[in-house]
Amino acid sequence: MTATFIPDWTEKAPKEGSFRSIFKYGAPNKFKHPSHGWYKMLKDDFALTDADFTTKHAEGLEQVSLEKLKHPQTLPSLYPTQITTLKTIVGEDNIALDDYSRVKYAYGKTAEEMMELRIAIVREVPDAVVHPRNKLEVQKIVEYCNQEKIPLYLFGGGSSVTLGCRPGPRRGITLVMATHMNKLLSINETNQTATVQAGMLGSAYEECLNKRNYSGGHFPQSFECATVGGWVVTLGSGQASTYYGDAYDLVLSQEYVTPVGTFRTLDYPATATGPKVNDIMKGSEGTYGVLVEVTMKIFRSSPANHRRFSFMFPSWEAAVDSSREVMQAGIGRPAIFRISDPEETDRGLKLYGIPSFLDKFMQWKGLLPMKRCLCLGSAEGEADFNQLLKSKIKKIARQHGALYLSEYPTKKWEKTRYQEPYMREDLGDYGIVIDTLEAAVTWDNLHKLHQGVRTFIKSRARTMCMTHASHFYPQGTNLYFIFITPMSDPEEYRKFQRGIIESIHQHGGSLSHHHGIGRMLAPWSEKHLGKEQMAILRTLKQHFDPNNIMNPGVFYEL
Amino acid sequence: MTATFIPDWTEKAPKEGSFRSIFKYGAPNKFKHPSHGWYKMLKDDFALTDADFTTKHAEGLEQVSLEKLKHPQTLPSLYPTQITTLKTIVGEDNIALDDYSRVKYAYGKTAEEMMELRIAIVREVPDAVVHPRNKLEVQKIVEYCNQEKIPLYLFGGGSSVTLGCRPGPRRGITLVMATHMNKLLSINETNQTATVQAGMLGSAYEECLNKRNYSGGHFPQSFECATVGGWVVTLGSGQASTYYGDAYDLVLSQEYVTPVGTFRTLDYPATATGPKVNDIMKGSEGTYGVLVEVTMKIFRSSPANHRRFSFMFPSWEAAVDSSREVMQAGIGRPAIFRISDPEETDRGLKLYGIPSFLDKFMQWKGLLPMKRCLCLGSAEGEADFNQLLKSKIKKIARQHGALYLSEYPTKKWEKTRYQEPYMREDLGDYGIVIDTLEAAVTWDNLHKLHQGVRTFIKSRARTMCMTHASHFYPQGTNLYFIFITPMSDPEEYRKFQRGIIESIHQHGGSLSHHHGIGRMLAPWSEKHLGKEQMAILRTLKQHFDPNNIMNPGVFYEL
Repeated sequence: MTATFIPDWTEKAPKEGSFRSIFKYGAPNKFKHPSHGWYKMLKDDFALTDADFTTKHAEGLEQVSLEKLKHPQTLPSLYPTQITTLKTIVGEDNIALDDYSRVKYAYGKTAEEMMELRIAIVREVPDAVVHPRNKLEVQKIVEYCNQEKIPLYLFGGGSSVTLGCRPGPRRGITLVMATHMNKLLSINETNQTATVQAGMLGSAYEECLNKRNYSGGHFPQSFECATVGGWVVTLGSGQASTYYGDAYDLVLSQEYVTPVGTFRTLDYPATATGPKVNDIMKGSEGTYGVLVEVTMKIFRSSPANHRRFSFMFPSWEAAVDSSREVMQAGIGRPAIFRISDPEETDRGLKLYGIPSFLDKFMQWKGLLPMKRCLCLGSAEGEADFNQLLKSKIKKIARQHGALYLSEYPTKKWEKTRYQEPYMREDLGDYGIVIDTLEAAVTWDNLHKLHQGVRTFIKSRARTMCMTHASHFYPQGTNLYFIFITPMSDPEEYRKFQRGIIESIHQHGGSLSHHHGIGRMLAPWSEKHLGKEQMAILRTLKQHFDPNNIMNPGVFYEL
Repeated sequence: MTATFIPDWTEKAPKEGSFRSIFKYGAPNKFKHPSHGWYKMLKDDFALTDADFTTKHAEGLEQVSLEKLKHPQTLPSLYPTQITTLKTIVGEDNIALDDYSRVKYAYGKTAEEMMELRIAIVREVPDAVVHPRNKLEVQKIVEYCNQEKIPLYLFGGGSSVTLGCRPGPRRGITLVMATHMNKLLSINETNQTATVQAGMLGSAYEECLNKRNYSGGHFPQSFECATVGGWVVTLGSGQASTYYGDAYDLVLSQEYVTPVGTFRTLDYPATATGPKVNDIMKGSEGTYGVLVEVTMKIFRSSPANHRRFSFMFPSWEAAVDSSREVMQAGIGRPAIFRISDPEETDRGLKLYGIPSFLDKFMQWKGLLPMKRCLCLGSAEGEADFNQLLKSKIKKIARQHGALYLSEYPTKKWEKTRYQEPYMREDLGDYGIVIDTLEAAVTWDNLHKLHQGVRTFIKSRARTMCMTHASHFYPQGTNLYFIFITPMSDPEEYRKFQRGIIESIHQHGGSLSHHHGIGRMLAPWSEKHLGKEQMAILRTLKQHFDPNNIMNPGVFYEL
């Protein structure tokens, strides 16, 4: 065997206070490097050599200092008396004015933010970062900010991929919900609900529930670093949403602090008492008020009962048709259910190192490279229900020409599913960007959307585009586009990425299936929803927030 | 055998133009009389004799004439030029000014309305009744009424039990949606959706779908005389909602004509693009605008696969606990699922004539009168799924002490389920009122609500109170209270019935699970929802309808 070159992937937690410590995904000491397969694929596809992986650039190792940057948007705009008042509300220790905190809590996890932080470009930052300890403090802060017309931004777990954590040009203060307001308040076993503070991290929430043999049923890729409140206000979806429901479906009631008052929606499993305020508030992304508590539906947890399955389909069309049949057949719903398009499937097989005999067998069965499509899934209800559902799904898949591939691929995927984003930094160190965009679509428009957006992405030279559908409904699904290309100039990136968004819009996809709108998609809100629907949402915004202090610029363009 | 006295139940369609033709339920020539069992029970419970059933009173046989009534609310308030303009919009034939039409289209199906019409008390009526032929005409009418500030009321199928068809004191015109705008526009088999005009009757809609082997999955008791649009704007639930979902869940997208514009919500199975306008509009009860078209989710229909079941539980607590287990066990959901409380069960057994050997057997098994509770249900998905679900439900029921009673009771119930309301007139002819109220509730408050409301109803002498739960969720269910008592004075009735509503409110039930708010529950809207939530809905009302012309007085008190 010849010695194989391995790039010097970073294995050290970023220095405290550095730009890198802000944009690094997940836990500071956790890493997941590209495998040999990945590395080979990157070189092959992008015509790179080992030499291109010898020097890291723009690692963002410098210490954050706003003075040095002299960006006008970083000059503080609050009066000292205002800071003093905020201190009396939350206590000295819970307000931060230092440069690092101001930058850290202004950033989410878009590729754009990472690229800019690498080269010390800092956009809007809050004047002060405030960590409220309880509901009452949130009320006092909102009241005071409303009175003083100080803009108020919200930071949950910081996993936003829509520039949802970035302040607007008027700046103001950022409320960090996860520091103190992160407790599971109660579990109601009779109603199967859990009442939780909005700032609790999803993984901590799930862990608490698991101890009582329950599950929240919500497993987004950002599981380790998104909050329960964040799920609700951005309308997130977990990877098992096909069975458990999206965040929208999981909420029984909520409590909001808004500039015009605090209220809790009512606890009913269903009502016919006019438009449902409980639903109106979901997806408001902090623009109507601050979600402080939420009562979520929970589920009995029985991981031992889960039944996994995986298939290889002869074509994307067959995988789609089979999935549609599964969703419309009246057999119940799988929890995890994913189909990968040919490019994603092919790259996946290369990366996970498929044995050549299996590849040959698949080809012999007519499952050809760049045609075949992988499907992963699991059934997560009661044991016999899972068994039956799995057998029905197998039958449907076979009717669509699929080869059953055992439980193994799904198990393998489950093990690493939250770690994929950790590769971002390694790729970025060598000037390669990996990012995603996603949309919802009805079945009858799926192929048009897939082909249209793919064509746009692939029209750029040296660009991978992997697509999967992972959240299923009887009426349609989502498409999740992953694109990878050598690029490190933020301007060039923005142009390309905004072009993909426009392509999604043009081909009839929704602007987002589960990432929300934030500041990034706000310029499309009105053309997507139409002026009448946008006017309805603006009216609600004006109702809750007459002084436009709540997350101004998110969802509604300034 | 001795000859049994049978009251002279009416078997003749009411005369055209009579009050009775307005308040009679359902088809004019269709009747369902109280059985011998019913008749005996009424006499026993209310200490009546055959003699009390020899003379009918207040049958409402008179011809409707507003002049004779001289009620100030019946004097027309529109200018002749306004009528002329409306005629140019819809054509001479599609506007009615006669007394009969004005009364007919001002009435729903509350017991209160029936009692009053029997004695020729007429409340508010519209000045004109308009039958729009299409969307464009609705647009022109709304625009014109908004310009002239003419109140606009909506009449779907007229099955409202919340005074939802009654105009307000300012009167105006009533739009009848079912006359022309009653077509199934298209079926999309790929997406499993049907696009339908709002005025199509539910039974006609289901019939059209059945021809293509689909079902709408929505079977309210008012199936024969409620419209699809009515389901959506009042948030109705069908008797199989536990599986198929409530009307709220069944809507993919909608088109509304409002005073501030016409718009169609987007067709996506899910989105994360801010608060969902598609959901904001549901339940607006005509107060925001006119629903003209709706795209509904549909289901494959396979009645041959349905698996019915029924049980007798030893107690209400056991029936409730078993139902909760069914909903929380992760085994899928039954379609029809109903549990009757002891009084409803006992009366049901008497009415349906349970064989005495079976009664003895049940008692021997510990299923005692005024303790035991009946459960009916069906599974309506794919055949094997149904089989498994039924077997799981049987197992759970047995663990809660239930006796399995075969498919028969459910089959029998299904056959007559839409006919129960036909008895109203027969009872009313002899001064007996039968009516219902309903509420949603979480599991942990079910017994308090049931006992509290029952105690209130039973505190009135000679009053039957039968309760069932019939729409189930993992977090709770609904309670449906049926009350029967000798009463024919509308004032006395109103006081009693409003007392029950107040009792529901006091005991923590929702104001309505699936009947909506209308004009009847509007006085409770604010105390139920709280002022902050009411303010949100008022803001939306003000947005859509700045001149308060859309169904003024419905939901929002005048």
